Order: sequence, then C-alpha cells, then structure tokens
Amino acid sequence: MPANTFQQRIADEHRVIIIGGGFGGLYAAQNLGSQKNIEVLLIDRRNFHLFQPLLYQVATGGLSPGDIASPLRAVLKRYQNIRVLQAEVRNIDPGQQAVYIDDDCLYYDSLIIATGAHHHYFGNPQWETNAPGLKTIEDALEMRRRIFRAFEAAEKEQDPVKQSHLMTFVIVGAGPTGVELAGALGELAHSTLKHDFRHLDPEQAKIILIEGGNRILPTYEESLSKKAQRSLERLGVTVQTNTFVTNIDDDIVTVKTADHTETIPTKTILWAAGVQSSSLSSVLTEQTGVESDSIGRVLVAPDLSIPDYPDIFVIGDLANFSHQTGKPLPGIAPVAMQQGRYVARLLKKRLRNKPTESFKYFDKGNLAVIGRNAAIADIGGFRLSGWFAWIIWVFVHIMYLVEFDNRVLVLFQWASNYLTRKRGARLITNEKSSKTEKVAVDEFS
Amino acid sequence: MPANTFQQRIADEHRVIIIGGGFGGLYAAQNLGSQKNIEVLLIDRRNFHLFQPLLYQVATGGLSPGDIASPLRAVLKRYQNIRVLQAEVRNIDPGQQAVYIDDDCLYYDSLIIATGAHHHYFGNPQWETNAPGLKTIEDALEMRRRIFRAFEAAEKEQDPVKQSHLMTFVIVGAGPTGVELAGALGELAHSTLKHDFRHLDPEQAKIILIEGGNRILPTYEESLSKKAQRSLERLGVTVQTNTFVTNIDDDIVTVKTADHTETIPTKTILWAAGVQSSSLSSVLTEQTGVESDSIGRVLVAPDLSIPDYPDIFVIGDLANFSHQTGKPLPGIAPVAMQQGRYVARLLKKRLRNKPTESFKYFDKGNLAVIGRNAAIADIGGFRLSGWFAWIIWVFVHIMYLVEFDNRVLVLFQWASNYLTRKRGARLITNEKSSKTEKVAVDEFS
Repeated sequence: MPANTFQQRIADEHRVIIIGGGFGGLYAAQNLGSQKNIEVLLIDRRNFHLFQPLLYQVATGGLSPGDIASPLRAVLKRYQNIRVLQAEVRNIDPGQQAVYIDDDCLYYDSLIIATGAHHHYFGNPQWETNAPGLKTIEDALEMRRRIFRAFEAAEKEQDPVKQSHLMTFVIVGAGPTGVELAGALGELAHSTLKHDFRHLDPEQAKIILIEGGNRILPTYEESLSKKAQRSLERLGVTVQTNTFVTNIDDDIVTVKTADHTETIPTKTILWAAGVQSSSLSSVLTEQTGVESDSIGRVLVAPDLSIPDYPDIFVIGDLANFSHQTGKPLPGIAPVAMQQGRYVARLLKKRLRNKPTESFKYFDKGNLAVIGRNAAIADIGGFRLSGWFAWIIWVFVHIMYLVEFDNRVLVLFQWASNYLTRKRGARLITNEKSSKTEKVAVDEFS
Repeated sequence: MPANTFQQRIADEHRVIIIGGGFGGLYAAQNLGSQKNIEVLLIDRRNFHLFQPLLYQVATGGLSPGDIASPLRAVLKRYQNIRVLQAEVRNIDPGQQAVYIDDDCLYYDSLIIATGAHHHYFGNPQWETNAPGLKTIEDALEMRRRIFRAFEAAEKEQDPVKQSHLMTFVIVGAGPTGVELAGALGELAHSTLKHDFRHLDPEQAKIILIEGGNRILPTYEESLSKKAQRSLERLGVTVQTNTFVTNIDDDIVTVKTADHTETIPTKTILWAAGVQSSSLSSVLTEQTGVESDSIGRVLVAPDLSIPDYPDIFVIGDLANFSHQTGKPLPGIAPVAMQQGRYVARLLKKRLRNKPTESFKYFDKGNLAVIGRNAAIADIGGFRLSGWFAWIIWVFVHIMYLVEFDNRVLVLFQWASNYLTRKRGARLITNEKSSKTEKVAVDEFS
C-alpha cells in the first residue's frame, strides 16, 4: 500500500478509516483484513491494544502491563491491506469525508469511530488527583503505586491512628470494575501480604466499597448481587450501598446516605464510578448534528451509522444503541466486539450490493470475579457462583486475550498466583517523590 | 520482632542494617536469614529487587518490568529475623553507629552498604535529557518509549532525510550493556519489526555503537571481542571504536576519532558508558575519612570493611576491591553476590569468635549476548561463541532470577520470543506529549 493512499482520493479502492484500537476498532479491522479492494487505516493514540477487563489485575500487582497489552502492529501485521498509525484525531469533516491528524488530512470512504470513554467525576474534575480512575495502563500503574505505597508507609508509621488511615482503601462505584478491585484488594490484604510486614498486620486493612444504588453490580441479576456481596464480605470488604460521595479531599472522603453524612479518613481512594465518552463525541455532534446522551454517547441508527451519514459508524462505548431493548447497551467488551464485526460485515455486503440488517447484540452473559476463588456468572439464564464460575471467568478472559503469547503467559501467571497467592508484579514505579529525591541526592554526591 | 528494634540499643541481639536491595544487599540478607540473635533490617529506596542484567530486554520490548523485578518483601518474607523498609538513607553516623532516614534514626551493630552506581556523563550531566542511561526500571521504560516512538514517527514522516534521522540509533559505550542493547536493536529492526510497517522498511535502520577504546567489550578476552563485533555487524550494527563523544545536543551527536570530527544526526541516543557510585560514597568519605577512587568507589579493606571501621562493610558496585588482582573488581552481579555472601558469613563467624579470611572473588567467567542466537562466553578459560554460548547465557541468567515464578515466566517469554521473533512488551507508555494531549482533549469535550 503506498504511503499516500489515504491522502488522495483513489477511485477503485474503498478506504476505511477506523479511529480507536480498542475492542470495537480492532474487531472491525480484523474482519476487514485481507479483503480485496478495501484499504484500512487504523488510527490510535497508543501503539497497543489494551485488554481493559484485566486492568484491575495490573492495578493490584497480579499482572504486568505487557501481559494485557499487545502492539497493534503485531496483531495486524499479517493483513497487508491494513495500515496502523499512532496519531490523535483532532477533527472530522463529514462533507469532505476527511479526518484531521496533527498536520495531515486523510480521506475515507467509510469511517468507523470507536474511541471509547474515559472516567468522569460527575462535574468534579478536581477529584481525579485524589481518586484516580482505571482506564489506561498509566491509570493502573498509578493505582498500583498508591496501593503498595500505602502499605509501605503504614509499616513505617508509629502513630496507630495515622497507620489506620494509611490502611483504609475506599473504592467508589460497585460496577464490575469496582467489585473486582475490591475483591483483589481484599485478597491482597488478607492473603498475599499476610507475612510480608513485621510492624503492621495487613489483615487490619479496611476496604470500603461505596455504591450509590441499592445493590452492587446493579446491571446483574439481583440474586447474583447478593452472592457477590457475601463473597466480598468474606474477604473483609465493607459494602456501603445507597451511599453517595459528596466530596473528595486530601486524605478524606465525605459520603452521604439517606439519613446522615460521614467522613472517611483514607490515603487511598480508587475511582470506579462514572464514565464519559471520548472527546470525539462533541466533534461529531458539532459536525453532523447527531444527538448524544448525558454522558456523551452518540445516538446511532439501527445499523450503527449516524443518521443522515451512512458512511460514518460509531461503535463501542462511544455509541448509545437503544433500538434493541429500549435502553442503551452496556459499555462492555462483548458489545464493542460484536459491533466492530457487524460494521465490517455490513461494509463488505454494501460493496457487493447485498442487503444488510440492523445490528443485534447477542448477550452471552455476565461475569464478575471476586478474589481468588469466587466469581458470579449469568450465562443464558444459568446463574452460577463460586469456584466453578471463577474457572469460567478465567478461561473466558484468557481466551479473548488477543495474542497467543499473552494467553499462555496470563494463564501461567494466573495458575501461579492461584497456587502461591503471590502477586509478583507489585512494583512501586515512577514515584514522583523518589524521582525528586534521586535528583536531590545525585546533586549531593 | 518489635517495631522499634532498630530504634533502641538491645544488648543480646546483633543488629545488621543493610542499605540497598541489589545483588549485594539481597545476598547478604539471605545469608543472614533465620540466624538466631541476628536481626536484619534491609533498607531500599524501591520496594523491589531488580535483575539489572536483563534491563536491556525491557528497554527493547522483550520482557516486562514485572518479569525482572521481585518485591523485596516477597523474596525475604520467610526469614522472620529480616525486616524490609522502603526508605532513603540520608546520612550515617559511624561514631553513634546510626543511620538516618526521613525523620528517624536507626542503630546498627554492623552496617552493610550496597547502594551501587548510577550512570554518569563524564561531567556533562546535561546530556542525560537526550541520552538516557539504563540503571532503573524507569530508565528502561524511557528507552523503550524512545525506540518505539522513533519507529512510529518514522512511519508518519514524509521527508526521507528526517525519516532516516528518526531511524538512526546511537549507542554510546560498548561494555556488555551497550553490546547487548545494540544486538537487541539490530534484531528488532531486521527481524521483529520486518512486516509491521507499510511506509518504512525497518531494515533501513542505522544502529551505531560508539566505543572510546580500541575494541568492544574491553574487559573480555580479545578474540571474543572480535567475534562479538562480527555478530553485531551481521545484525546490521555499525561499530565505531576509538571514537569519543564530544557533545550531545537535540537530535545530534558529535564524535571525535584520531583524525576527524563527525556529527551524527539522530533522534535516539542511548547511554551505556560511564557509571558513578551512589551518593552514599561521599557520605562515607566525609564521615569515616575512607578514600574513594575517581568514580566514587570506596577503597575497602581485604575483608570489605572500611579501614578503622570494622563494623561497616561496603560491597558491590560501590566498593573498589583491588587486593586480589591489583585492579578493582568489575561492577557486575557475580562480584556483588559473592561479596554479600562473604560479609554475611564473616559476621556469623565473628559472632562465634571464629577466625575470618579475606574476601576472594571466584571468577566464573564472562558472558554477553548479541541478538537471538549469538553470545560469547569465557568460562574458566573456555571460550565459546554462537548458539551454544547463547543457550548458556540464557540459562545462567534465568537461573539467577530471584523468584521461581519469574524464572518460569522469563524462560517462557524467551522461548516464545525466540520462536516467533516477537517482542510483545513493546508498549509506548507514559508519554508526556500524549498525557498533555489527553488533558487538552478532555477539556475540549
């Protein structure tokens, strides 16, 4: 493919630009791979695909970033018709069928936008400093740093009150990410770190999971929520439902329930609550007039295109697809994967002038894991919990890891973590303070 | 062990403080583990032990940080008489037998200092911005970021001259680290990335290894240097010996040979040349009057103690031990390991009033690896090169990884990288520019 394919218009090729290499974008690309007369350009800010459902394992030291990320070029190298570009899309011009990156303008015949969502603090962006979210590798490493830093500081702390604040972990939001984080932290404190310290007892750690709704995992079946809560409590997690965070400050969270306000002194606050669509959402509403919902998801047509723009598709967390059940599909990997594959197939049918159908999501079930041995699963109406659900969870997640290498590695890590209760990747890296210290000391020498 | 063991003087325990959890400190600690009447405190700035000889693999995307680092607490948890503290030692008071961290003062009966070395720019600290060294995990990730960023930028670059600068990699220093980095880069360009790009040909990459001496691997036997150079050249590396770096600026390296000066335009400069002892060196010379050499190594007594201070030992890269051969032992892992073990045994003998002997280094041989299949080895006078030396190299390195988990993982990664020529950990993370962009874009949305 010549370098400038996407910089000029070429008559006999159908050029597809995909923005975003998450589950939606990657599945769309793979399903357009090796197609004659279709040229694909996948643009992503990062040079890798990230398996977000396992990000909480990086945050809690169970896996390394390299285990759950695969270079996009490596994943797509065998498709000669796919080109990968690490760049950031600044703007879109639907009239010109053009996409703007840095100082370049690239033309498409079809455009697939799959830029996802980032975490969101309900109008309190200042909370981010004290309560990092979990969407990127850097986010996960920041959480990992804070969690293990807190234990290290607690080991040094002589004042029992301060030590107890250092060992209090608050997780805001009890969707799958919050629940899985809380479970992993519970396991960490009560099993992995058990014999690691001499001065503190990790079992004294307080792990508090805060949820505004009246139960955890609100999108799951109610009996599973109950089972999940019981599993968490067995790991020492305190679950507070019907509780809203009203303020986050240095070392303190303020929460409100129906009848009172409470402050929780803590050094570690992890955010697993709101998300908001990526910035391309507002570019799209501006440029195409398409409507978006309160968190910025674009209201797509039944075929995932933008109304009046049959050549622009929005998939994954960025899309609000409500045609099937009347409410938006959840922002989870299976939805994005199926949407990516659907759009790729639709484009291929269009090029052959074949009829196309609306998108339909096939719900294979819900899974969430709580610690080492317990998971809950809702698969086609079958509800499972405990060890068997955990095994299913492990295999489903590992199966979907993109590269074979990663699958074997992660399976090994999992087996090893399971047998030894270790979490070998619990490194504290990129500490700002230690960096400063290092410079200071170097100057001193 | 009570929290304050090291904050008061206790008569019937011998308290050993070890500063630094590298090879020297860790081996000293392990050899003092589970000893009656000996209490050990290991202090390190970081919470993990790092297997530095494989750091170049992280820098080139072959391994993840978690693969070559082990939490110190996990490694030492089974020794009830060892306590680990993440802290930075500010000062030492040999008269009081005290060590100062943050706002605490800790007392020792014996002190082992093993804080190692960091890279050094021969009086040009400003070069660090353009030519990062390779001593920490963060250094390795910085190198990884720059290397893969350069390929990504080259893929976008339309100007062939600029593209060629982006694909020029200069490595300064041809000791083991420089040679191994150059070999890994050669392999990356000529094999791993071969089919990854559409616009650029990674085989066009120029990899230049610069060495001031008259041959690469100057501490190795001469015939091995030649073989190593030939292996590097086969991987497309240009070796320039008798060449000195006189300046490093943005995107340009100036070098001088006997008869001319040359400038090399490049976007990626990797520093593998000078090292300098850690800052505790100057604290020691000030507080004890001990002499140090030009790069700050402390001139130790035959038993690795500081002259006139039989209770203070200096080991590893921080020590200049010249009693055996007349010149200092090299700053490599086997020396540090043997010194750590030696001091631990000496302390145990002292406590039992047994006679002690001087330290003797047993040189098991030299090993360096050049790419996928080639290594050179000098083991007890046997000189090997090629595939068999490579296999020895792989096993020796993996055998010494501290935790069993890591060993199996790294062995698997190695086998997989070997068979597939992949480097799955080539993630570009923590980019400053992308971080800024993200913030800018978030504000925009």
